[in-house]
Amino acid sequence: MDKFNPELDLRLERVAENVKPETIWKAWTRPEHLKRWFVPEPWTIADVEVDLRPGGIFRTVMQSPEGEQFPNLGCFLEIVENKKLVWTDVLLPGFRPAATVESGADLPFTAIVLIEAHGKGSKYTAIAMHKNVEDRKRHDEMGFQEGWGKCFDQLIALAPEIR
Amino acid sequence: MDKFNPELDLRLERVAENVKPETIWKAWTRPEHLKRWFVPEPWTIADVEVDLRPGGIFRTVMQSPEGEQFPNLGCFLEIVENKKLVWTDVLLPGFRPAATVESGADLPFTAIVLIEAHGKGSKYTAIAMHKNVEDRKRHDEMGFQEGWGKCFDQLIALAPEIR
Repeated sequence: MDKFNPELDLRLERVAENVKPETIWKAWTRPEHLKRWFVPEPWTIADVEVDLRPGGIFRTVMQSPEGEQFPNLGCFLEIVENKKLVWTDVLLPGFRPAATVESGADLPFTAIVLIEAHGKGSKYTAIAMHKNVEDRKRHDEMGFQEGWGKCFDQLIALAPEIR
Repeated sequence: MDKFNPELDLRLERVAENVKPETIWKAWTRPEHLKRWFVPEPWTIADVEVDLRPGGIFRTVMQSPEGEQFPNLGCFLEIVENKKLVWTDVLLPGFRPAATVESGADLPFTAIVLIEAHGKGSKYTAIAMHKNVEDRKRHDEMGFQEGWGKCFDQLIALAPEIR
């Protein structure tokens, strides 16, 4: 039940040959970096809040080129520095059950980001876990692979600037 | 957002003059003890699974005197030994969003149990956090105060046997 389930989950796997796990971790956990890669261009991130502890807030506001804003609100569940980050929009900060899922598409899911050392770089795995096949299908059709892949490319392009 | 909200939450507070926090913690986290106090008599606990880590399973099966069984499935969110235990039925083990909340009354909530040293004994606080006023009201009318209170009395009665 707590493993990748191809019927319910989506997974993006990438290798970054020259970007260390510590750099990817910083990109994922510091608002100033998240603002620059967390949505595919030409969309932008209008705001980010990160409280990096279990139950701590993870809030992003995505903005369309036309200026329309889409908030995403959730909380962190598990934090293993440089290795694993888990968050969900099913629970609000403080672990309160969410009344309505505040994500762009009202899509309830839990995200697991795994980072491993791989040669001089990193192996990166991002998993989205859903409650049923319908939510998985909807997330897939929204362009999970393309969207999360483009974001990861943006993260890698930003890596040289991350200290 | 991550504090007690009287409009959305329920709270039971008790003082146990002669029961140490360590004993209450063991009663809450070991299946052999949970089986003996976790539902008001004459109901019984037919089965318990505890994997005491964030994302680990917390499953109980309550059984009516007539033999009907009511499973409750969720996962632990935060574990601070002898002090704080947080779990929810909104997420399944491994943090997957739950398709339908498997509790006796299909009631989504997050439970926070707080234990503090208090003289020679303990102060005990149990909080149930809900997503809206309707769920809080339903949980209240199901007898939260009386049910959780009776269970705590049963726990205290069991305390002399807990090592």
